Amino acid sequence: MNELRNGIHRLGLRIYFEDTDAGGIVYHANYLRYAERARSEALRTLGAPHAEMIATHHRMFVVRRANIDYERPARLDDWLVVTTRVLAIGAAQVTLDQTIWRDDVALVRIDLGLACIDAVSQRAARLPAPMRAALERMRVGGIADGPGAVEGT
Amino acid sequence: MNELRNGIHRLGLRIYFEDTDAGGIVYHANYLRYAERARSEALRTLGAPHAEMIATHHRMFVVRRANIDYERPARLDDWLVVTTRVLAIGAAQVTLDQTIWRDDVALVRIDLGLACIDAVSQRAARLPAPMRAALERMRVGGIADGPGAVEGT
Amino acid sequence: MNELRNGIHRLGLRIYFEDTDAGGIVYHANYLRYAERARSEALRTLGAPHAEMIATHHRMFVVRRANIDYERPARLDDWLVVTTRVLAIGAAQVTLDQTIWRDDVALVRIDLGLACIDAVSQRAARLPAPMRAALERMRVGGIADGPGAVEGT
Amino acid sequence: MNELRNGIHRLGLRIYFEDTDAGGIVYHANYLRYAERARSEALRTLGAPHAEMIATHHRMFVVRRANIDYERPARLDDWLVVTTRVLAIGAAQVTLDQTIWRDDVALVRIDLGLACIDAVSQRAARLPAPMRAALERMRVGGIADGPGAVEGT
Repeated sequence: MNELRNGIHRLGLRIYFEDTDAGGIVYHANYLRYAERARSEALRTLGAPHAEMIATHHRMFVVRRANIDYERPARLDDWLVVTTRVLAIGAAQVTLDQTIWRDDVALVRIDLGLACIDAVSQRAARLPAPMRAALERMRVGGIADGPGAVEGT
Repeated sequence: MNELRNGIHRLGLRIYFEDTDAGGIVYHANYLRYAERARSEALRTLGAPHAEMIATHHRMFVVRRANIDYERPARLDDWLVVTTRVLAIGAAQVTLDQTIWRDDVALVRIDLGLACIDAVSQRAARLPAPMRAALERMRVGGIADGPGAVEGT
Repeated sequence: MNELRNGIHRLGLRIYFEDTDAGGIVYHANYLRYAERARSEALRTLGAPHAEMIATHHRMFVVRRANIDYERPARLDDWLVVTTRVLAIGAAQVTLDQTIWRDDVALVRIDLGLACIDAVSQRAARLPAPMRAALERMRVGGIADGPGAVEGT
Repeated sequence: MNELRNGIHRLGLRIYFEDTDAGGIVYHANYLRYAERARSEALRTLGAPHAEMIATHHRMFVVRRANIDYERPARLDDWLVVTTRVLAIGAAQVTLDQTIWRDDVALVRIDLGLACIDAVSQRAARLPAPMRAALERMRVGGIADGPGAVEGT
């Protein structure tokens, strides 16, 4: 599953041994990896993959802030879905809601702030217009009340 | 792509920022992760996922030996395919050939030895008959001369 | 550097290729790893390592919440220091301030909430008295205004 | 522990939750990380850290081959030592023996081949003379028969 519908991007992923720790659950830092995979796929789906963003626009995203709530653990062999929604778009930053689900249960919720920077100077830089337009398509107002949710609208 | 055909399992995967290092290429240890993902999916495809192997048969696989040849580097945004073939099946061990491809180019080749162990005592233990039968299906004699290769046979 | 002084634990660590990504900086999820290393070493310094906590008290810590501010990036070969302070201790939870420094510059600040759980049932469980006493020693009121800071008090 | 004695470099490291998997042991790919940490520290000890090698000599090392024997598993809280010895130095490559120990027991043995490449063209390039001289100091003929071994000579 890797799709954009009603302003919500969904990426499915499997949990392997590499994702888990000796506590028998997914190591807590790894959810940030899944969120990053989902952002990468969302941008690709929107026609704006990293490589092009760097090559054409000389811009990159960096994470400025992440507020993570761990509600329930994921385990080996689980199939998870990451939903990604754009909450706000500024001149040089983007705020996202990314939630990681198993079936209809939210396991981890991430409120994430990205900054757009110049790939060379590493300084804050305005979002290129095509990037902004792409991201706007993920801000239709969908509400992620479940990983496969929200028909209609 | 996650399929078993002609005795060869193929798993497709994307390269994200988490996979790369400051050299601009995939960090060399991570190919072992992709190989392990591929083995997990191959077992699942064969109807013998880890969780069941542990719960029903009280057996696990551990890696005993890995000989890795790094021929070419993978990079951010690459789409790779891991092919997995069973070379030999012993009483308590399995030898695999796992190759990681980008298009028709082999990037990394791994010759891997697994041991079957008892999940509690952690000692070498015979392969359960259903596991052995499943693995035999990956030993049809297919030759991985490319990631999407081998029609017919 | 791995020491507890004036209620602040400090752990030094080096940045290797494994820590970085193709952007040339430390991959953002990895700071949670460094924070976890620091907590592990702090507990060991306090005489309460994970293994004993599990074996003797049948308790584990899990991360319930992490609020991360990324202020400046770390890079290959950097020597970083993680400071850990206990902000609050509840019946079954602990709140920590963990900051990652390069020289006197704060790179990443993490406000972290841990829950104490029963190692078997995985349910919330009271902090064992020796654990609580140990953690109290990290709550002397020290202020981490720098990685090597705060003589006296 | 981070020292070069009698041609053998030794690096000590602790196993944290991030290193382990749901099997309760260290995830097999991670030993390659420890070997890379040890090589980085060995080069630093020899006065030739990565950053300088890139900035001054425009050269990097990449792994070309790794043959890994997993003899015994490491576990949470273990203190391990990585020994690194140079077996052979060619015009543009280096062969190393890296072994990971717990006390006097070898857990994992890695026979590793590095290639020296131009940092820009990524093509094979001769080892700079100062690098070669530094590496020669790790080829005194010491035999790693234990992690703290070999007094005298």
